[in-house]
Amino acid sequence: MPERTWIRWPEGRGTPFGYGADYNPEQWPRETWLEDVRLMREAGVTIVSLGIFAWSLLEPRDGAFDFSLLDDVMDLLHEHGVAVDLATATASPPAWLVTAHPDMRPVDAEGRVLGFGGRQSICPSSPVYRHHSLRLVRALAEHVRDHPALALWHVNNEFGCHNAHCYCDTSAAAFRAWLRARHGTIAALNDAWATSFWSQRYGTWDEIVPPRLAPTFCNPGQQLDFFRFSSDAHVEQYLAEAAVLHEVTPDVPVTTNFMNTGGTKWLDYLGWGAHVDVVSNDHYLQEPSPHPEAELAFSADLTRGCARGKPWMLMEQSTSAVNWGRINRAKDPGELWRNSLSQVGRGADAICYFQWRASSGGAEKFHSAMVPHAGSDTRVFREVTEQGRRLAALAEVQGSVAANDVALLFDFEAWWASELDSHPHNGFSYRREAERLYVPLWRRGVGVDVVHPDADLSGYRLVLVPALYLVADGLAPRLEAFAAAGGTVLVTFFSGIVDVTDRVRLGGYPGAFRDLLGVRVEEFRPLRPGCAATLSDGSRALDWSEDLSAPDAAARLTYADGVLAGRPAVTRRQAGAGSAWYVSCDLQPDAAASVLDAVLADAGVTALAEADDALELTRRVHADGRAYLFAINHSGADAALHAGGTDLLTGAIHEARVVVPAGGTVVLRTGG
Amino acid sequence: MPERTWIRWPEGRGTPFGYGADYNPEQWPRETWLEDVRLMREAGVTIVSLGIFAWSLLEPRDGAFDFSLLDDVMDLLHEHGVAVDLATATASPPAWLVTAHPDMRPVDAEGRVLGFGGRQSICPSSPVYRHHSLRLVRALAEHVRDHPALALWHVNNEFGCHNAHCYCDTSAAAFRAWLRARHGTIAALNDAWATSFWSQRYGTWDEIVPPRLAPTFCNPGQQLDFFRFSSDAHVEQYLAEAAVLHEVTPDVPVTTNFMNTGGTKWLDYLGWGAHVDVVSNDHYLQEPSPHPEAELAFSADLTRGCARGKPWMLMEQSTSAVNWGRINRAKDPGELWRNSLSQVGRGADAICYFQWRASSGGAEKFHSAMVPHAGSDTRVFREVTEQGRRLAALAEVQGSVAANDVALLFDFEAWWASELDSHPHNGFSYRREAERLYVPLWRRGVGVDVVHPDADLSGYRLVLVPALYLVADGLAPRLEAFAAAGGTVLVTFFSGIVDVTDRVRLGGYPGAFRDLLGVRVEEFRPLRPGCAATLSDGSRALDWSEDLSAPDAAARLTYADGVLAGRPAVTRRQAGAGSAWYVSCDLQPDAAASVLDAVLADAGVTALAEADDALELTRRVHADGRAYLFAINHSGADAALHAGGTDLLTGAIHEARVVVPAGGTVVLRTGG
Amino acid sequence: MPERTWIRWPEGRGTPFGYGADYNPEQWPRETWLEDVRLMREAGVTIVSLGIFAWSLLEPRDGAFDFSLLDDVMDLLHEHGVAVDLATATASPPAWLVTAHPDMRPVDAEGRVLGFGGRQSICPSSPVYRHHSLRLVRALAEHVRDHPALALWHVNNEFGCHNAHCYCDTSAAAFRAWLRARHGTIAALNDAWATSFWSQRYGTWDEIVPPRLAPTFCNPGQQLDFFRFSSDAHVEQYLAEAAVLHEVTPDVPVTTNFMNTGGTKWLDYLGWGAHVDVVSNDHYLQEPSPHPEAELAFSADLTRGCARGKPWMLMEQSTSAVNWGRINRAKDPGELWRNSLSQVGRGADAICYFQWRASSGGAEKFHSAMVPHAGSDTRVFREVTEQGRRLAALAEVQGSVAANDVALLFDFEAWWASELDSHPHNGFSYRREAERLYVPLWRRGVGVDVVHPDADLSGYRLVLVPALYLVADGLAPRLEAFAAAGGTVLVTFFSGIVDVTDRVRLGGYPGAFRDLLGVRVEEFRPLRPGCAATLSDGSRALDWSEDLSAPDAAARLTYADGVLAGRPAVTRRQAGAGSAWYVSCDLQPDAAASVLDAVLADAGVTALAEADDALELTRRVHADGRAYLFAINHSGADAALHAGGTDLLTGAIHEARVVVPAGGTVVLRTGG
Repeated sequence: MPERTWIRWPEGRGTPFGYGADYNPEQWPRETWLEDVRLMREAGVTIVSLGIFAWSLLEPRDGAFDFSLLDDVMDLLHEHGVAVDLATATASPPAWLVTAHPDMRPVDAEGRVLGFGGRQSICPSSPVYRHHSLRLVRALAEHVRDHPALALWHVNNEFGCHNAHCYCDTSAAAFRAWLRARHGTIAALNDAWATSFWSQRYGTWDEIVPPRLAPTFCNPGQQLDFFRFSSDAHVEQYLAEAAVLHEVTPDVPVTTNFMNTGGTKWLDYLGWGAHVDVVSNDHYLQEPSPHPEAELAFSADLTRGCARGKPWMLMEQSTSAVNWGRINRAKDPGELWRNSLSQVGRGADAICYFQWRASSGGAEKFHSAMVPHAGSDTRVFREVTEQGRRLAALAEVQGSVAANDVALLFDFEAWWASELDSHPHNGFSYRREAERLYVPLWRRGVGVDVVHPDADLSGYRLVLVPALYLVADGLAPRLEAFAAAGGTVLVTFFSGIVDVTDRVRLGGYPGAFRDLLGVRVEEFRPLRPGCAATLSDGSRALDWSEDLSAPDAAARLTYADGVLAGRPAVTRRQAGAGSAWYVSCDLQPDAAASVLDAVLADAGVTALAEADDALELTRRVHADGRAYLFAINHSGADAALHAGGTDLLTGAIHEARVVVPAGGTVVLRTGG
Repeated sequence: MPERTWIRWPEGRGTPFGYGADYNPEQWPRETWLEDVRLMREAGVTIVSLGIFAWSLLEPRDGAFDFSLLDDVMDLLHEHGVAVDLATATASPPAWLVTAHPDMRPVDAEGRVLGFGGRQSICPSSPVYRHHSLRLVRALAEHVRDHPALALWHVNNEFGCHNAHCYCDTSAAAFRAWLRARHGTIAALNDAWATSFWSQRYGTWDEIVPPRLAPTFCNPGQQLDFFRFSSDAHVEQYLAEAAVLHEVTPDVPVTTNFMNTGGTKWLDYLGWGAHVDVVSNDHYLQEPSPHPEAELAFSADLTRGCARGKPWMLMEQSTSAVNWGRINRAKDPGELWRNSLSQVGRGADAICYFQWRASSGGAEKFHSAMVPHAGSDTRVFREVTEQGRRLAALAEVQGSVAANDVALLFDFEAWWASELDSHPHNGFSYRREAERLYVPLWRRGVGVDVVHPDADLSGYRLVLVPALYLVADGLAPRLEAFAAAGGTVLVTFFSGIVDVTDRVRLGGYPGAFRDLLGVRVEEFRPLRPGCAATLSDGSRALDWSEDLSAPDAAARLTYADGVLAGRPAVTRRQAGAGSAWYVSCDLQPDAAASVLDAVLADAGVTALAEADDALELTRRVHADGRAYLFAINHSGADAALHAGGTDLLTGAIHEARVVVPAGGTVVLRTGG
Repeated sequence: MPERTWIRWPEGRGTPFGYGADYNPEQWPRETWLEDVRLMREAGVTIVSLGIFAWSLLEPRDGAFDFSLLDDVMDLLHEHGVAVDLATATASPPAWLVTAHPDMRPVDAEGRVLGFGGRQSICPSSPVYRHHSLRLVRALAEHVRDHPALALWHVNNEFGCHNAHCYCDTSAAAFRAWLRARHGTIAALNDAWATSFWSQRYGTWDEIVPPRLAPTFCNPGQQLDFFRFSSDAHVEQYLAEAAVLHEVTPDVPVTTNFMNTGGTKWLDYLGWGAHVDVVSNDHYLQEPSPHPEAELAFSADLTRGCARGKPWMLMEQSTSAVNWGRINRAKDPGELWRNSLSQVGRGADAICYFQWRASSGGAEKFHSAMVPHAGSDTRVFREVTEQGRRLAALAEVQGSVAANDVALLFDFEAWWASELDSHPHNGFSYRREAERLYVPLWRRGVGVDVVHPDADLSGYRLVLVPALYLVADGLAPRLEAFAAAGGTVLVTFFSGIVDVTDRVRLGGYPGAFRDLLGVRVEEFRPLRPGCAATLSDGSRALDWSEDLSAPDAAARLTYADGVLAGRPAVTRRQAGAGSAWYVSCDLQPDAAASVLDAVLADAGVTALAEADDALELTRRVHADGRAYLFAINHSGADAALHAGGTDLLTGAIHEARVVVPAGGTVVLRTGG
């Protein structure tokens, strides 16, 4: 249903740039609502998310619905030109429901019940929760189906944020059903899980439980399947809610807010993206982080991957500090806009926040908002208002897409598997390995698409495969064909190790990629703190090295000391018309940058524009040829961008060079 | 009943200085008792606390009481001139009781039962415990009511030391009853707890449980009320035991030992102090600490606050090492006495220890005592004996009180609220912020009263308000009036933020104190490690800064770098005849000292005497004008005190200058 | 039954050196078995451990046994000359059993159930487990009793590795029975546990539970007895299995693999050693460790102590990396052999590994093996094969024993007691204190026997008593007699403190040893970080010091600063013809080495040979006078050994000096 692919703006509004926030009027008296809509108009807000935590308001008692406050607020918003992304309100079940059905509370691996008092006290497999949530969704949808402000459905909220995995008996039964569907026979499950080890063979399905606390490490196959099951359980709830919405309001698109941010790993958003009408994402800066802006960029590129390249919504971010970190830094002046533009440049056609007005009570009262505790006479609200003006100026960008030469393969299942226990180096971080390759390209202004290994690779010049521990059988042949056709492939250590059941691919690492790369690893040699390995370029690996031979590849870097002295560390195989590179250790930033320079040259990939180092660059293009070059200056000094066009933010026309001021931004229309 | 205000010494004993320890003769054979009373006499012991852990001895089976050992010991002590502070023995219920009533065991927030085997395996709201404990108290009181050694009742022991909060179903029911009494209606509770956030609205009281483990942060109002309820639950048990005692032995005063020491925060001792006849306190040096003697002084001044300025007992401290730290340092020679005198100088008219004789078995066998494992031929016992001599020489000090110019406002409820989760800086420590102001005054010899915000402030020149996050509505006007009348007020960051329901006071921080201080904070700017803010005096703030304007105050210090450069950091408002200072960041010691020097000058407050820096000073005065200046030399070099009088410890008469030797002490009678 | 003292090799095989691994053919297809036996022959493998995790294979359903795979494998191995150490397969009960009897799952101190999914989900006191495991053992033994490959029984596996302590109700009942047997009366128990402290007196046995989670520290006597009970519970299971085996196959010796390695402390292997026919041990290098080879040596000497000096098996170690550490280092070339030879030199007459072939699935798939994932064309397999050749060359060493002059007393019960909570320094490590004395001797090439305090000391010149906190009454008189007869004794701090019930020996530390050593300690003075004590030789103690007088001993070192300045730190008492030394602090390596040099000189003990520092030395001797000197060069440079003889590894004959190459080894036949 192609009509569902973007916010259905109310008639007569045109297609404004989406701008707004979660709006929780139930926390405020009605006189505040009037100030709210006045300030929204002042700030250029076009859409708000309503009702996310309203279940206890909408259904104060079992089966007794009351939509009157909602009606009033939606009318008021509509009068003031603000569209509504209406939540199904199912994210936080009310006290009466949890009290009546204590079995719906999630249970952790240690058997601890996670009760009422916070939010998401939900076993994702609970039939009671399913029943009550769908009943609410239907009642709500039928009530508001004809409201003119209704522009988008927001299913639930941050699925799995606190209840990604539930280990209760209800979940155990659902897990068994899922396993039966996946494996068919108990013999197949025993084989997949390698249960001949440690006498774990199962005779019947009934013997299987989630990987609860055990005397020692649980079976890795059991863990991996449980993570898959858990992700699927949340998707199921999404699909059930969405089905009701599609039935009642077939013209209104449906979204749910993903959480591609930092280490959030438990839901397979790349798979889930296929099921939502509009992909939306919540992103919060990771503090402290060595490069928070690069992480933001990666998450945005990944979200575009979830959206199959199409535009998406930034559903939540913060105007300044959050409340849930240990030390919650306030953003610097200008940072709010730079964060937003980084996402617009990567496909976000809506920029929203949690939340409109800072709460006076509750667990998140110290989370920043568009309207701070101190009110509208504040730096933050002034920046919010200026941002509204700027986003309006970017309206024509909407609908344009990326056209990058580089794909970075990313796989949530591989993430789960690669960070299981009992591995050679248990400080391994999949996301960090992906960023090890991503950050140098981000610094160089090379555009990158973050996509699932199953994605079509034919349009790319370079494919990056960071630490892809788990790979299905089909990938290596596809990469071989990609290289044979002239493409360049870069694979890094701990890739190709296991099949989809977490069984090691024997004969030498990197298993699936041995032939592609022309190398054979006898043994991993993880490095303890203080035991770095030196490479031939003088750089050092700190965490990982490998005992490697390269029967069919050339060494580009070698190990320079220790028992590996003289052995290959980084290799390149000429693979048909293309090439296949392997990095066997954790290159540190400078060395990684050098290797990537060589790989980019090999692949014929260049930056989106010539520019000073301080500038972050992205590009979006319309099918009609209009193109937009986004430049963000993260530094405290002016920086030059060697490109010409019209700056959408200022209207200024630049010939071939723009000075982007310290902390400033430029959006050039360069084509069309 | 004024007759209950101090230890009721046996007839003919006069009013000796209280000196002694917990005495646990049930751990020793009778021949040891005879050595005990001989050594007590040698050491000058005047009172011991008896029976604290004797329940299983006094009631070996349900309802079968046996006081014979107690009788023998009390007779023996009385014969040897030692009075008895008799415990109600309710602190550690016997095995038979816990076994018969497993529901009386406390349960933690994660649902874990805290069983028998240690001590205090008590749900504070257990009716079973209440019943059995009161039955014991009555039987005991009726048995000993006429014993001449009975000088004081010691209710229970260190209430809440290990069971401050219980999350069991019994506690849940009691919590609900408490909430109903506090809030009246469920609507009022919903409002107080801001339950419109996260869909937490309650429909009936039955839906409410303690803030048990939840998927994420529990509601802060729920947490704060649960802390209040829990503190009240312990007070209730105290009052119930005390009521029996007052009924049976109306002439014997009642105490219970508070634990004002370091981070012990869960019982509102400032409120509780109103309910006890004699305030007593347990204090243990906090190891490691940047300034353990200052912490001891603060705790002693706070205990005097609990006692509304009246003399109090130091019920427990250690002669040397404790057993419950990770590394348990032995005290240095002389330290035992310096610790004691610091407390005498702050109102302690009795100095006692845990315990008389070091146990040979059990969990605390490596806790030091007045008689060590090595016996009486030891440094420790020699110091104990010398201390007995010195305390006797201080008898006339008894009953005198402090007369300080400075009040430091301290509030346990604010403590609980300010250290809840989800705050801007979750490394915040209320006690540390109080000590940030206290320590410079302690170093300067300025006397400080630590009092509740509701205390009468009229007698003071200076009121310090460190980080008072939660404030009731009445305080700011009272401080405004205090300043208008010529007083000086100093408020530090994160003050005035919320009302008593933990709802933010809107319009800009510091909320309640905005007008008093003439400042407005738009945003907190907590500082991450390595991100210090520099001030205009070259000093640095490490953890906290604020985006501040001072519309009605003058900047005394400004921020010197970063986004706050040039903004006020420390301000002073001329408030009528007085002034109101604000410190918006965590001043480090030198900067804090400088600011306090200016504030003291503003307030016209000076040190208790002119003296070298090494000396700790305190003063006590009698109504008749006799005054006592205490000086303690914590350094390894002699130090001069510029004051005259008679040294009670030596009888020496000093004109106007005394040299206090390294590690030594002086107590001058200076007036009267 | 002396015939059970070593592996019963199949007829016609002679007495080969034991060499092999755990072999888990059930994880592999039959075609892999054929490669396995071919490679075993190539590697010189003589014995494999079979069936350790085979329960679910051997008894796939309750009572339905299937030994067909086992038969095939044993036949195949026998055909290829490989003997079988057959496991009873009881270490990991199958899913059907745990599912049918959830009460057999162990429970931790917090009440958390440790369920199925890992291994050892066994309550050691479970009658259900006992019944089913013995039924399996009997069926298995009766089935294989006549198989010619059966050379040894391997009972269970790594008893207590993950389930050392179980706190469930079944265990509670067994604990009570054990207590009744140990203490006889409840009064005796109350006395032993010092229950008059904290009102813990028990009226009946039924009131007693394991030391489960409590509000604070549990009673130490309760803890210590629970540790004893738990160790005994595992021994009981061993004895029950062994009794069946001895009954069915009286000629086949029985072992179980101990885990003397690093901090593994919960089973009293020194006591247990008396009950096994062949002592075997699992050892894994401790990473990171300041001296992993010394720890390995200590564990080997301790294992020989368990074996009462007789030869023993090294049942498990790793060829390279393990999988269960955080960062799992691969071994360097040559390290595998040096590790093995260190153990052969200390009495190991069999060298085996976990496991033969690296698993492709399961929790330990990244544990190294004799055949790596990369196959037999690998460095590891080449070293494995070379090791097989070398071990064959050492066949004549078998049966020889140590003849050392030094005994180091080691006691598991003292270990448990000394690391209980609430101690003066809770960072105390018994094993570290033992190694503080052991390592300097290891570096000097002095042979040490690690034995229980009850061992016969008459053959030694020097007895080391590191930090023996708990001592029975008899030891001090035995050491006094040993010294009187000319022996030298060295005792270090925190020794002799308590009796076997953990009651302090009063009158001054070190309690039991006060007279022997001629010293009296008034007080421990543990040292906090940054508060080191300096000694008169300029060295420093970092963690521990004592306030010591030496009425009957001479100070060899004194404290040089702080409150202990001038007091004795290390003392020597002339005790009859011998001497008794005391060390009151934690000497750092150089100071410990100096003191031990003096003590060795006092005792007339010298190194096993003159040699460069880099060499580790051990010696074994036959009753007929043939002796073997083992030298291992851990350094990267050649090192000289001043001894002559025939090198068994090369056949070379050396006169009086051998150069041991960097990383190399020598085994000289020096006598006979």
